[in-house]
Amino acid sequence: MLAKTPTTETSFLDELFDRGLLIETGVDGLYGRSGLFEAIGDGFQALVSRYGAADKAEVVRFPPAMARSVFEQSGYMKSFPQLAGTVHCFCGNPADHVSLLQTIEQKGDWTEGQKASDVVLTPAACYPLYPTAARRGDLPVEGRLYDLLSYCFRHEPSKDPARQQFFRMREYVRMGTPDQVTEFRANWLERGQKLIGDLGLPFAVDVANDPFFGRTGKMLAVNQRDQRLKFELLIPIESEENPTACLSFNYHQDHFGKTFGLTSADGEVAHTACVGFGHERVILALLKHHGTDVARWPASVRTALGL
Amino acid sequence: MLAKTPTTETSFLDELFDRGLLIETGVDGLYGRSGLFEAIGDGFQALVSRYGAADKAEVVRFPPAMARSVFEQSGYMKSFPQLAGTVHCFCGNPADHVSLLQTIEQKGDWTEGQKASDVVLTPAACYPLYPTAARRGDLPVEGRLYDLLSYCFRHEPSKDPARQQFFRMREYVRMGTPDQVTEFRANWLERGQKLIGDLGLPFAVDVANDPFFGRTGKMLAVNQRDQRLKFELLIPIESEENPTACLSFNYHQDHFGKTFGLTSADGEVAHTACVGFGHERVILALLKHHGTDVARWPASVRTALGL
Repeated sequence: MLAKTPTTETSFLDELFDRGLLIETGVDGLYGRSGLFEAIGDGFQALVSRYGAADKAEVVRFPPAMARSVFEQSGYMKSFPQLAGTVHCFCGNPADHVSLLQTIEQKGDWTEGQKASDVVLTPAACYPLYPTAARRGDLPVEGRLYDLLSYCFRHEPSKDPARQQFFRMREYVRMGTPDQVTEFRANWLERGQKLIGDLGLPFAVDVANDPFFGRTGKMLAVNQRDQRLKFELLIPIESEENPTACLSFNYHQDHFGKTFGLTSADGEVAHTACVGFGHERVILALLKHHGTDVARWPASVRTALGL
Repeated sequence: MLAKTPTTETSFLDELFDRGLLIETGVDGLYGRSGLFEAIGDGFQALVSRYGAADKAEVVRFPPAMARSVFEQSGYMKSFPQLAGTVHCFCGNPADHVSLLQTIEQKGDWTEGQKASDVVLTPAACYPLYPTAARRGDLPVEGRLYDLLSYCFRHEPSKDPARQQFFRMREYVRMGTPDQVTEFRANWLERGQKLIGDLGLPFAVDVANDPFFGRTGKMLAVNQRDQRLKFELLIPIESEENPTACLSFNYHQDHFGKTFGLTSADGEVAHTACVGFGHERVILALLKHHGTDVARWPASVRTALGL
């Protein structure tokens, strides 16, 4: 059950601001985090690492952006154009600079002169990984397993604190044969539920789909659900009726293998799967259900998080 | 002295790729990091925290972007337009999407239709902080001290691994009276040298200036040096002749106070100063001077970093 909503109009986001856990920046979905918020998150990441430790994943950390060429190759603009963020720069000379400053001075749109750079913000932690993995040649017989964490961007301004434009995503990504990667996903479906149980949070697991764009997108979504390619672990945060996906368990079949030329030991197109952890979402779920006073959280939860 | 350069043409960047410490993405200055690279960095951050612990700074962590409105107010486009990165998005309807995909298909420039969003990439960790601090009202008599860390972006593609487009910056930011902030900077000038000494790295401290754009920029740079507003702790990484600024010690006078309406307890415009630590640069300095085999680093250095 969710902690009782105060009878006033104070939203959960306002409460987080008031307690200083999140910090306003003037843009919906773009927030600073307090030291306490980060400490809860560090505890959560360490817990995930303990659950995954036996698998000995290779740790790789990418910055919050990727090469535009790889992004184009990924087909992201086909499926989720509305969410992407391209990075643009000023490439002019001193005269252009004078005119730019005049436009700013006159409150005009100075951004029109910005030119797209070679980088695009990372939409999901695993996107920069696939071409990197493909460059290493055929996968070994046992396949590969990576451990990722990065800030990601999705352009979806919202007052729901669980839907931020810049947020962190932890992922384990498995590459190999269909059997190897589906076994990995089945394992994490079990582990994920146990892990969230350790945190004393209510949850449900359900089949899900990605937010594909437009009419073709609707068909892709139906297909994804029919094939049970995506499961989500949902926790009520902003509402009971529309719980928030905090973990997701994805089987990509040969989609990324084909797209980026990733091959198994036998030379076949590799299959991939990933489990993703919404860093901020789990922290927010903890704050919602156990309250914003961490000292009063259940002892077992504090122990699990090392708090 | 720098570790001997191999007689082949292998650059330091190539060596880092070969050892898997940095990972290519196809864009100069945009690299993945290995688990070992990150572990060295974690050790460095913990060392900085130990040096700063007695000051009890308030920890705040911002995502790698800030509000465009704040960015515009900051005057960054006046001084460093060439380095900024604005984030642009697709805001079209399904018909626009069809035409976008055709452009991509035909290898055309699909980025022209992207529109500037409300966010801009963070150019230095402290930029999002000032308006946040100002909203809290007059500073208390003792001023304030913040502890920041974030990914930052600067558009300067380069093959020097110490000049990355996405990199992390740790900062302590002091706000208060001129005396309070200059004393803070003087303290860190001492501490910073001791800290880098603990890491067994050669260094020099020198007066410096920011890379202001254009002809007016040259005057600003001369002025900044004349007034000794910026010091850098330099370590040779890519070359002996042009050592790399790994720490910087900046006195902003009332620049940010005026710009963002930050006031001291007495209602005067607050002064600010900061010490910044180039996260990747210090890691790279360690790898350059002690070698890429961490097990063979001096025991004292490994102890300082908890490795």
